[in-house]
Amino acid sequence: MAQCGPRVIIPIDVKKKPWEQKLPLHNRWHPEIPPVAEVTSGEVFRVEMVDFSGGGITRDYSAEDIKHANPSIVHYLSGPIRVHDSDGVPAKPGDLLAVEICNLGPLPGDEWGYTATFDRENGGGFLTDHFPCATKAIWYFEGIYAYSPHIPGVRFPGLTHPGIVGTAPSVELLKIWNERERKLQEEGLETFKLCEVLHSRPLANLPSTRGCVLGKIKEGTPEWERIANEAARTIPGRENGGNCDIKNLSRGSKVYLPVFIEGANLSTGDMHFSQGDGEVSFCGAIEMSGFLELKCEIIRGGMKEYLTPMGPTPLHVNPIFEIGPVEPRFSEWLVFEGISVDESGRQHYLDASVAYKRAVLNAINYLCKFGYSKEQMYLLLSCCPCEGRISGIVDSPNAVATLAIPTAIFDQDIRPKSKVPVGPRIVRKPDVLKCTYDGNLPITKNPSEAI
Amino acid sequence: MAQCGPRVIIPIDVKKKPWEQKLPLHNRWHPEIPPVAEVTSGEVFRVEMVDFSGGGITRDYSAEDIKHANPSIVHYLSGPIRVHDSDGVPAKPGDLLAVEICNLGPLPGDEWGYTATFDRENGGGFLTDHFPCATKAIWYFEGIYAYSPHIPGVRFPGLTHPGIVGTAPSVELLKIWNERERKLQEEGLETFKLCEVLHSRPLANLPSTRGCVLGKIKEGTPEWERIANEAARTIPGRENGGNCDIKNLSRGSKVYLPVFIEGANLSTGDMHFSQGDGEVSFCGAIEMSGFLELKCEIIRGGMKEYLTPMGPTPLHVNPIFEIGPVEPRFSEWLVFEGISVDESGRQHYLDASVAYKRAVLNAINYLCKFGYSKEQMYLLLSCCPCEGRISGIVDSPNAVATLAIPTAIFDQDIRPKSKVPVGPRIVRKPDVLKCTYDGNLPITKNPSEAI
Amino acid sequence: MAQCGPRVIIPIDVKKKPWEQKLPLHNRWHPEIPPVAEVTSGEVFRVEMVDFSGGGITRDYSAEDIKHANPSIVHYLSGPIRVHDSDGVPAKPGDLLAVEICNLGPLPGDEWGYTATFDRENGGGFLTDHFPCATKAIWYFEGIYAYSPHIPGVRFPGLTHPGIVGTAPSVELLKIWNERERKLQEEGLETFKLCEVLHSRPLANLPSTRGCVLGKIKEGTPEWERIANEAARTIPGRENGGNCDIKNLSRGSKVYLPVFIEGANLSTGDMHFSQGDGEVSFCGAIEMSGFLELKCEIIRGGMKEYLTPMGPTPLHVNPIFEIGPVEPRFSEWLVFEGISVDESGRQHYLDASVAYKRAVLNAINYLCKFGYSKEQMYLLLSCCPCEGRISGIVDSPNAVATLAIPTAIFDQDIRPKSKVPVGPRIVRKPDVLKCTYDGNLPITKNPSEAI
Amino acid sequence: MAQCGPRVIIPIDVKKKPWEQKLPLHNRWHPEIPPVAEVTSGEVFRVEMVDFSGGGITRDYSAEDIKHANPSIVHYLSGPIRVHDSDGVPAKPGDLLAVEICNLGPLPGDEWGYTATFDRENGGGFLTDHFPCATKAIWYFEGIYAYSPHIPGVRFPGLTHPGIVGTAPSVELLKIWNERERKLQEEGLETFKLCEVLHSRPLANLPSTRGCVLGKIKEGTPEWERIANEAARTIPGRENGGNCDIKNLSRGSKVYLPVFIEGANLSTGDMHFSQGDGEVSFCGAIEMSGFLELKCEIIRGGMKEYLTPMGPTPLHVNPIFEIGPVEPRFSEWLVFEGISVDESGRQHYLDASVAYKRAVLNAINYLCKFGYSKEQMYLLLSCCPCEGRISGIVDSPNAVATLAIPTAIFDQDIRPKSKVPVGPRIVRKPDVLKCTYDGNLPITKNPSEAI
Repeated sequence: MAQCGPRVIIPIDVKKKPWEQKLPLHNRWHPEIPPVAEVTSGEVFRVEMVDFSGGGITRDYSAEDIKHANPSIVHYLSGPIRVHDSDGVPAKPGDLLAVEICNLGPLPGDEWGYTATFDRENGGGFLTDHFPCATKAIWYFEGIYAYSPHIPGVRFPGLTHPGIVGTAPSVELLKIWNERERKLQEEGLETFKLCEVLHSRPLANLPSTRGCVLGKIKEGTPEWERIANEAARTIPGRENGGNCDIKNLSRGSKVYLPVFIEGANLSTGDMHFSQGDGEVSFCGAIEMSGFLELKCEIIRGGMKEYLTPMGPTPLHVNPIFEIGPVEPRFSEWLVFEGISVDESGRQHYLDASVAYKRAVLNAINYLCKFGYSKEQMYLLLSCCPCEGRISGIVDSPNAVATLAIPTAIFDQDIRPKSKVPVGPRIVRKPDVLKCTYDGNLPITKNPSEAI
Repeated sequence: MAQCGPRVIIPIDVKKKPWEQKLPLHNRWHPEIPPVAEVTSGEVFRVEMVDFSGGGITRDYSAEDIKHANPSIVHYLSGPIRVHDSDGVPAKPGDLLAVEICNLGPLPGDEWGYTATFDRENGGGFLTDHFPCATKAIWYFEGIYAYSPHIPGVRFPGLTHPGIVGTAPSVELLKIWNERERKLQEEGLETFKLCEVLHSRPLANLPSTRGCVLGKIKEGTPEWERIANEAARTIPGRENGGNCDIKNLSRGSKVYLPVFIEGANLSTGDMHFSQGDGEVSFCGAIEMSGFLELKCEIIRGGMKEYLTPMGPTPLHVNPIFEIGPVEPRFSEWLVFEGISVDESGRQHYLDASVAYKRAVLNAINYLCKFGYSKEQMYLLLSCCPCEGRISGIVDSPNAVATLAIPTAIFDQDIRPKSKVPVGPRIVRKPDVLKCTYDGNLPITKNPSEAI
Repeated sequence: MAQCGPRVIIPIDVKKKPWEQKLPLHNRWHPEIPPVAEVTSGEVFRVEMVDFSGGGITRDYSAEDIKHANPSIVHYLSGPIRVHDSDGVPAKPGDLLAVEICNLGPLPGDEWGYTATFDRENGGGFLTDHFPCATKAIWYFEGIYAYSPHIPGVRFPGLTHPGIVGTAPSVELLKIWNERERKLQEEGLETFKLCEVLHSRPLANLPSTRGCVLGKIKEGTPEWERIANEAARTIPGRENGGNCDIKNLSRGSKVYLPVFIEGANLSTGDMHFSQGDGEVSFCGAIEMSGFLELKCEIIRGGMKEYLTPMGPTPLHVNPIFEIGPVEPRFSEWLVFEGISVDESGRQHYLDASVAYKRAVLNAINYLCKFGYSKEQMYLLLSCCPCEGRISGIVDSPNAVATLAIPTAIFDQDIRPKSKVPVGPRIVRKPDVLKCTYDGNLPITKNPSEAI
Repeated sequence: MAQCGPRVIIPIDVKKKPWEQKLPLHNRWHPEIPPVAEVTSGEVFRVEMVDFSGGGITRDYSAEDIKHANPSIVHYLSGPIRVHDSDGVPAKPGDLLAVEICNLGPLPGDEWGYTATFDRENGGGFLTDHFPCATKAIWYFEGIYAYSPHIPGVRFPGLTHPGIVGTAPSVELLKIWNERERKLQEEGLETFKLCEVLHSRPLANLPSTRGCVLGKIKEGTPEWERIANEAARTIPGRENGGNCDIKNLSRGSKVYLPVFIEGANLSTGDMHFSQGDGEVSFCGAIEMSGFLELKCEIIRGGMKEYLTPMGPTPLHVNPIFEIGPVEPRFSEWLVFEGISVDESGRQHYLDASVAYKRAVLNAINYLCKFGYSKEQMYLLLSCCPCEGRISGIVDSPNAVATLAIPTAIFDQDIRPKSKVPVGPRIVRKPDVLKCTYDGNLPITKNPSEAI
């Protein structure tokens, strides 16, 4: 009897380098990157992927690979996948592509991952002014669970998801991206107060030929040069979905992506075993290689029917999605608040980013009382299934953001007790892997630290 | 046999005006507002409260009361409540006050509420540049459920909570608040780009004698004058908790508040039958009168033990809390994304507030396809149990925020279908109550509207 | 402005005896018990009720009242309530009555309850052969939570529900009940093996004039005599709903009851703050007085449309219901299995009752290892929100039943540990209130007890 | 770098017959069946398994294979697996073996399953007197979801689990099983009333050499003959766990099994993609081949510490388990009640099996109103994630059992509506695969059917 199961359309051999894979990968968004596979709507198919770094970050117990990571190569994506309907008619601009994530997971024999922060001079993270050093923790998977020798006493089920899933932009949309991001890069530091609080740099990642991989397009050709100079980086989420890092995009969920070019040209990558809302340490999920089992459906004319553009063009839209039914279930949460007052005591106006930064700092400092280093907790809050909420956004001048942590992930009771324990508590060793910070950028000191 | 149940320490008669209540209310934060009641730790007690407007907003089917609402009187609070331990020793600065919400609900005979947006020139809301008019919807309660004749086809269980619960600030903390908020008020418009996107004004609400109510302190006395000029407004959440508008602070939850003055002086008010994360329309929860059954516990020295100050002084802390076990359970959610690109197409740098604004706009426009007016959906997303998340805060330049809506609150299936329905759909009438906008402030037009 | 809230149709004064209440109660099922109130479909109304014993069981710290309880008076019900539609047309036989439980809770000032087992010679319980003594525990409510001084270290949120909600039977249905139950009473002991394993007696509770209360029908009249001799006892659940003791019939749930007589004649009572599946100790929920806020809807012809009779007549139907959205949420459960082999080692054939008895015994014995007495755990498993499942009913000869206990209700971790603790553990004192057993019925000894 | 992931200790090739697998299978319980693999406590390992029939039931669209299925070969198990600790010391009698199910799923390329009922003369099922014919439905898996062409309009996420996981019995325990089951087989029909209501036969499955497979023990040898005559059938769950068919024993759960012989000799099989409580149609889960990733821990002396024997010997114990954190989440349930009155109208005494039979019959008949055949719904309720509860077990004479069905698994709204739809509804075609029933056993007719 014939096999019964999803067709593997993009296989990955985890023992090989990104450029040695059977089907070429890509790490830029551009309408002219040719599809490497084609699927029919309704068909369940399997896509495999390398981790975002293509194996550049290893299972070695050292953070040197993080410190010297090459940001220009992120993220290696699988695809593009061309989608057509059962009559062979491809998805068309203006359609919606409903992508159901039927299943996903790590690749057999590669059941591990890592969480890291980049060096402040090499990408940083949400709290890079507090944590300028490159750090790394290795995670091992035991089926649905992950544990790390570098963050002892913690184990949790993964809410596994692809960090990136998106369709190819059209020429016009690509132009919009490049223009608005270039403007930010050039003028942002002068015009945005938020840059003084969120210190990670660069402000935007503009197209660059360095590290550029364009799938079937041969490096060195004039075509490659042209496209590499136009193609958008994959770091931010945008109108096409892309690097949304939405931690709930897991088993059984369904994302509705706008289609900008014929065939939709779906790409995906950057698998995460688990991630906290915000992915605060930047390289902050449990990064891994993995597989997706997907089913696509084309909703003809769906963009106009379901998405209302918000901005100067009909292309200014965003995807929508439905959450799946098998998320890990937690019943007890400890919640940290933050308001939009920064570490220097300055009042910001309804700024949810500043409020969230404070909530995360509050949570890190709290958890350190239970035997952990700040670095351990920064990485943990980046990758565990914690929830970041915008609780209040109208009570001028304070935005209120909250960070909710499921208490069950710890092997100790982390709730406040009425009888405060005294004396030193258990120290959670070993610590995360860590490099020195050799840069010169200023560090944000908590003025209360010395008090 | 003796009664068995919570002691009522602050009764409210909903047929009376705020100033006619048995125990005087207050609507400012100040250490010198005297307690009106005292409780022992471990005791379960009952606090009743007027709605935030003290009955100023009525059950009339007109939005005129909203349009002309007096912002200086918000929020009427019950308290302060002085807390001591079983030996009679009061809570002391440096302690933590654990406040458990054992139960809460509407007051008998007053089982209704309202959701509204203020006029753009009278307080506005998160989307005031899109929705400058005052609007109002009345909600009726059927036990755990609420429905509104002004937003037909929607019914949902409440996640009822007090919008405000907080301790009194010390003199020093109050000074910090007033200084940083005054600075924002004076310089904010020039220095914060976010002011160009979030248009509600004023930037901060500074102390004012107008509308000021100070509990047992008699109006007109020199003491009253002095305190009224110092006392902080209750609008923003701050270090003492206060107007955190955290929608999950419901039955069975526990909030850990820092104690700044002897006795803690706990105040509470602004009951919400239900609220969405962000409370986007500002007067945006289902506002109501109600009761709380509380139990306090004093954690001696808990501030130092559990809260790490983040800022120039040891007072720069934030409360933490635990979520209760009986939240309404929803299994299917439709999620809208927003990225930090504003309506004009301008790129912002990792700005979660801008991203959330876009997510909310996307959701409103989507839901309108199911027969609703934009005003109906703006109010609904403000008060229904929707979740606002900071999904990505590191993928420069885009913050990604999401708004998740439980689909079960609608009487129709609001998920995208592969076969797009054609022709006009059901129109949900009547609409919200609405006034004209007679002001001159510029309105944000969605440039794509006309396309 | 007019009051806004449910109309109180049946008030209860908890300081008064059952026969002193404003509207008379009843404790039998009969079509001729006259309605005491009338409601319109769609209207939200409030029904108050005494506890099942009408105050016979008190808050005294003694189990004597349980030992000598009068079983003939159970259960005091509020009603009957006649239901008509908005045109004034009453519910008719063949309709379905959809009853939504909008809200419920204890009566103010009476916020306590009790859990008990009857003496083996006075009603017993599921495990009466193991626990022949009358026992009692008092529970106090702190809002959504209950705790008992007699079962220390346990606190949990209630899944509050009316143990009894039902419509009045028709003459024909009543006759069916009386005949089949009389037959069981007369022949059961000889024909049913299960009687040898489940020892509580009597096998059925037949009509009796003793303790009979018939609402508006005056005791002593010939009518009263006749009806009292016909009227069914309220102990078992039957075709009309009645004493279903379904613990999930809580806030927001909806029960669809068949209508057998004109007006439906809805009655309700036996409020439970919380109950475990099975209510194993018989007087086993947390029994209390309380209120319900209900909304009825008449589905014309709904019995035929939705219920298929299963038995000799069209009256052999059962209600159906929908579960509400605000049940307490637990994420961790410890589960005990039982198979249909009884304590003597005898094999029963696919008998789920025997299997469940064993699962409950297993759970009680397990939990005793954590410092509790068996009596404490028997009462606890009767009233805490534990789930009793029929897991396997086809794998001859063993039925498999399971009992799942939410671990969060304990203040200690009750899961098995790989390192077994040694030495005596904490002993949970005081114990339940307990009387001697002075009867002569044989007790089931666990043969392994002495080993 | 070395592989990272679970070690495969028992591989299965789904293209091969059970007797052609690399490691021999077994289908009986006996202490002398030799281990085929050995693991260390703490190690994560992978066990693969055939479906219970070893491929005897096929993907063919015909129920003939069910009608003529050979019951003597069930269930093909993988194992036994010998367990030792990190010092090499094996598990010993009296220990507890904690088995964590880290992950599980179908085998790649074999992503389908089946649900069936046996012919009344070949094993039957819970409702075999109502459904005497052999029927079958094929299910296909789309990642976490299953759908069947034979039960259209239904799709649901699996709560996948091994139907069987158990340790080997000791000689003494085996003797106890054989004696008590033989006694039932011989005397049951005369002594148990339940046999008249639950008609599936035989009452017990005693050891038989027919179809017996004993792993490494060669068929035909004297040793094989002896063991085959002693070895217990795998159909019922017993003290060693075994065929418990507990549907919640899924990802992340942990079962604590008693150890009866040195090494524990763990065996597992009978994988289910999904199952309803009770597995009512007998071959009633979605049966499939699959894999488990397990981790074992030995709790030395744990049997005495945690399990209390209930019966004549210390071996009369039952396993306990903890539920995992990633069960599918449903929020809306429609619940059917049953009471212990059988189809003839006869009253049974607190019989939960009879009550559950009635609840299942009620549910089947109800769902048929939505366009389904009874056979479709019988199979569906057997395999979908429905919950069977023992709601009341003390209210003499009626046990109340309930069956709760998650409404989200249907593509239509199956809740009762106040306006009853008229006229024929959609008919769900095709129907299940079905054979004729050629036997002569009496069929239970619902007396109300003709009414």
